[in-house]
Amino acid sequence: MAMTPFNPSRRQLLAMIGQVAGTAAMYQAMTSLGLAQESGYTGPPDLQGPRQGRRVLILGAGIAGMAAAYEMRRAGYEVKILEYQNRQGGRCLTIRGGDRYTEMGGHEISCDFQGDGYFNPGPWRLPVHHRAVFAYCRRLGVPMQPFINKNNKAYLHSAHAFGGQPQRIGHVEKDMRGHVSELLAKSLRQGELDEAVSPEDREKLLEGLKEWGVLDRNYRFSVSDDLGDVRGWDTRPGGGLMPEKSPSQPIDLSPLLQSGLWDQLFNFNGYQFEPPMFEPVGGMDRITDAFAREVADVIQLNARVTRIAQNDNSVTVTYEDGGQGGTVRQESADWCICTIPLSVLVQLDVDCSDAMRKAIAAVPYASAFKVALEFRRRFWEQDDWIMGGISYTDLPLVQIAYPNYGFLSDGPAVLQAAYDTATAGRNFTYSWSSMTPQERIDAALALGRQIHPQYDAEFMSGTSWVWHRVDWSLGCYGQWTEDLRDEHYQTLCEIDNRLVLAGEHCSHIPAWLEGSLLSALDAIRRLDQRENA
Amino acid sequence: MAMTPFNPSRRQLLAMIGQVAGTAAMYQAMTSLGLAQESGYTGPPDLQGPRQGRRVLILGAGIAGMAAAYEMRRAGYEVKILEYQNRQGGRCLTIRGGDRYTEMGGHEISCDFQGDGYFNPGPWRLPVHHRAVFAYCRRLGVPMQPFINKNNKAYLHSAHAFGGQPQRIGHVEKDMRGHVSELLAKSLRQGELDEAVSPEDREKLLEGLKEWGVLDRNYRFSVSDDLGDVRGWDTRPGGGLMPEKSPSQPIDLSPLLQSGLWDQLFNFNGYQFEPPMFEPVGGMDRITDAFAREVADVIQLNARVTRIAQNDNSVTVTYEDGGQGGTVRQESADWCICTIPLSVLVQLDVDCSDAMRKAIAAVPYASAFKVALEFRRRFWEQDDWIMGGISYTDLPLVQIAYPNYGFLSDGPAVLQAAYDTATAGRNFTYSWSSMTPQERIDAALALGRQIHPQYDAEFMSGTSWVWHRVDWSLGCYGQWTEDLRDEHYQTLCEIDNRLVLAGEHCSHIPAWLEGSLLSALDAIRRLDQRENA
Repeated sequence: MAMTPFNPSRRQLLAMIGQVAGTAAMYQAMTSLGLAQESGYTGPPDLQGPRQGRRVLILGAGIAGMAAAYEMRRAGYEVKILEYQNRQGGRCLTIRGGDRYTEMGGHEISCDFQGDGYFNPGPWRLPVHHRAVFAYCRRLGVPMQPFINKNNKAYLHSAHAFGGQPQRIGHVEKDMRGHVSELLAKSLRQGELDEAVSPEDREKLLEGLKEWGVLDRNYRFSVSDDLGDVRGWDTRPGGGLMPEKSPSQPIDLSPLLQSGLWDQLFNFNGYQFEPPMFEPVGGMDRITDAFAREVADVIQLNARVTRIAQNDNSVTVTYEDGGQGGTVRQESADWCICTIPLSVLVQLDVDCSDAMRKAIAAVPYASAFKVALEFRRRFWEQDDWIMGGISYTDLPLVQIAYPNYGFLSDGPAVLQAAYDTATAGRNFTYSWSSMTPQERIDAALALGRQIHPQYDAEFMSGTSWVWHRVDWSLGCYGQWTEDLRDEHYQTLCEIDNRLVLAGEHCSHIPAWLEGSLLSALDAIRRLDQRENA
Repeated sequence: MAMTPFNPSRRQLLAMIGQVAGTAAMYQAMTSLGLAQESGYTGPPDLQGPRQGRRVLILGAGIAGMAAAYEMRRAGYEVKILEYQNRQGGRCLTIRGGDRYTEMGGHEISCDFQGDGYFNPGPWRLPVHHRAVFAYCRRLGVPMQPFINKNNKAYLHSAHAFGGQPQRIGHVEKDMRGHVSELLAKSLRQGELDEAVSPEDREKLLEGLKEWGVLDRNYRFSVSDDLGDVRGWDTRPGGGLMPEKSPSQPIDLSPLLQSGLWDQLFNFNGYQFEPPMFEPVGGMDRITDAFAREVADVIQLNARVTRIAQNDNSVTVTYEDGGQGGTVRQESADWCICTIPLSVLVQLDVDCSDAMRKAIAAVPYASAFKVALEFRRRFWEQDDWIMGGISYTDLPLVQIAYPNYGFLSDGPAVLQAAYDTATAGRNFTYSWSSMTPQERIDAALALGRQIHPQYDAEFMSGTSWVWHRVDWSLGCYGQWTEDLRDEHYQTLCEIDNRLVLAGEHCSHIPAWLEGSLLSALDAIRRLDQRENA
């Protein structure tokens, strides 16, 4: 873009600095307001603590249950967690070589990864505005590394477009930007938007479109060295007397629109997926492990809850103690925080209002699946220049995610080779769920080799995870609709006598750790208020 | 976007997989071609080696000189490097607490950082298509980590817009996308682009604009929960019974266009800056340190070259040996590879063609400066949610870059608090260059506190780097124009009898390590061919 050259002298520069210095204090007030406004997490909960010795029984040692236990104990409550599994962490888990798991239906899932690659069947990436997650990771000492979500070198792919050849994300993005800019510039220059855009804005907008879309002097999106500088090269600029550079050729508007690849690009559009995203170093279970370090002493594993009874003064939970051959036991407490997924809770015998019972039964659980494959080498980095990020396809594997650690290393590495949750637009999840573990691996390989032909030569082993075959969650996350929320959400979250529910299903951020944490923080805040009312 | 639901049965899915499996082989051939095409780096140089014992003298122990020495020695040449400084690495350097440097004009630059933060005065980020850099980092074992270049939470700022309040990059980006989509949809729906866009394409384009720009059913860019999901929230979705979410308010088109912030966004447009970018773990000098581990035994430091003489059979280089009180010495060799910056070389006595001498004198060197500041805490992460990335401003500090390591840690951390190179549009660099080191720190503080008011309370110490005050480079990089290239580039790169030049100035990628490496690789390939001709 043509800009007026601005070459201040040293004296002018120092004068500028003097002029602006006074405005900082005013701005400080503004920005503090703006930041406080957006945050759902406002710091550690300010609990008063119990008026006298009080016992809180927490059901489920996922992140919601452990966070509740951590904060309630700090505030002076006596806490105990009952957990169905022989591990803590809930749906925030990481699978590594040597892990074994028997899914519903009797299939054993094995993970035979040879290298240090791993696989997160549940949550796997964190947006930075998920402040509760970040605050606890900081407090509990969980190191973070960038999770590359959008990688312009990764692929968008349709089996029905461009002869099945994947296209780089950056190419689709910049070509659509160029075509859109050219079309809008055309309209603007023909005076067709004069009612909508003032002459001053029109000038700025045309200038901007030219730069943003890389249009030529006639406002056309065409091949040029300027386009090479933005879109990339067929022959890249070299050193010494290497061959002359030549810019790459954009894809025409019509085949691009008809390919559906632009739509795939919208997978990166959401606020949850804005750059940068993060992940804990070493696997998602580092987060729940950090909580477990704080509260392991109050977790009882292998405790299968069958009944939650309550009266005006206390809660009594009946459970089978798997550590004692299934002996039936009971625990009583003043309060109960239940984080058991609704899909499981609906099958238990719970004393609560009819309205809450209806709410518990009303929310369906989303299905979701993932397949992970280990390969002998990082061919995606070495051959395709894809370092981290995600490729999307209209094949039923939906997406391939590349590891964001161990870059450039030799030896085996793990791809998240298929992943989807049921959405309004498509549902591959039931088909994958009904396959055997071996069929899932075969399917991920047969489909994925269309995008990465190196699959055939480099495959070592695979594993998979199907949330509807997990007996302790019976699905992936609470799948709310607006109608369901209007009818049931308030009831589900309200304290029912001595009982309150928490977990991602009791939040407006289902499926995310942040939803679980905020739900737990809000529940204990209200419970503490009730205690002190 | 409305999509036809696609719910294949398990049987249909397995059938699909069978159908597509046959196409992979065909595609494999296509993709191999596509990838080979774009690469400027095609693997380690295939050198024949000398016909008999041959000595190569290399001037300069930057990355070009060290890469040349590394490869030439592997091919059987005897190599020696003369380096002016008492360190290797050239312009690829990292400044840490305790470092001292006297710049031209006599000022001592000190770096008093207390924490483990560091500062890269020269190159600081690597695009993944810089394949030579990545190939050597892999060969030489330099671990890489993501460099977050574009962070949607970082700021765009104008002192003259929005009362001086910075705006989030993601907001500017998504608002402009929304306004552009709304305007183009308006034109399309009014039939004004029917000649340019077919009815089928028009439908797809309107559908896409609706999703991309987050337009409502009337194709207007307006506040909605859908917009919140893409742009963010004034009150974010919470857990339990936290306050109701409310979507954020987009910025209107006119103030946005007039603010100039959209133009700042174009800083992220270039192919060089596509996500993901990378940096070596621990500082940029880890790359040149890795080369030095391979060739340190052939580097003579403190060798100030004064004359390069040559005849048809050999080259003789005269230098002052700083290790021996400036004693004048000579080294002879069969070939000489000179990587000395042209800005310095032009002052030496060099036997070469008149045309090459003119070329050496013709290329000006770009000015550039950086200021780095250490603060007591990562307020940008803790208060502003900015984890890595770059904020841009129209203030003369131009940009603030946040560290991409040590996320969430307590204690001091370092910002690259001001950085610019001279461009056609603006030139702040001479003003900063003419300030004293203390004035530069004061200026970076006084300007930067407008974007981060926390500067005042958290500042610890600062340091700076001004490339025109560096006696061994006299500027930052070779600033070619198209006219200069047409006239001088070929001559500059050709072998002149026994002498060949290399370095970023002998490349089409000036200022980047990749340019230096490709230049060196091309020079030694041609030199080896000449040797064996």
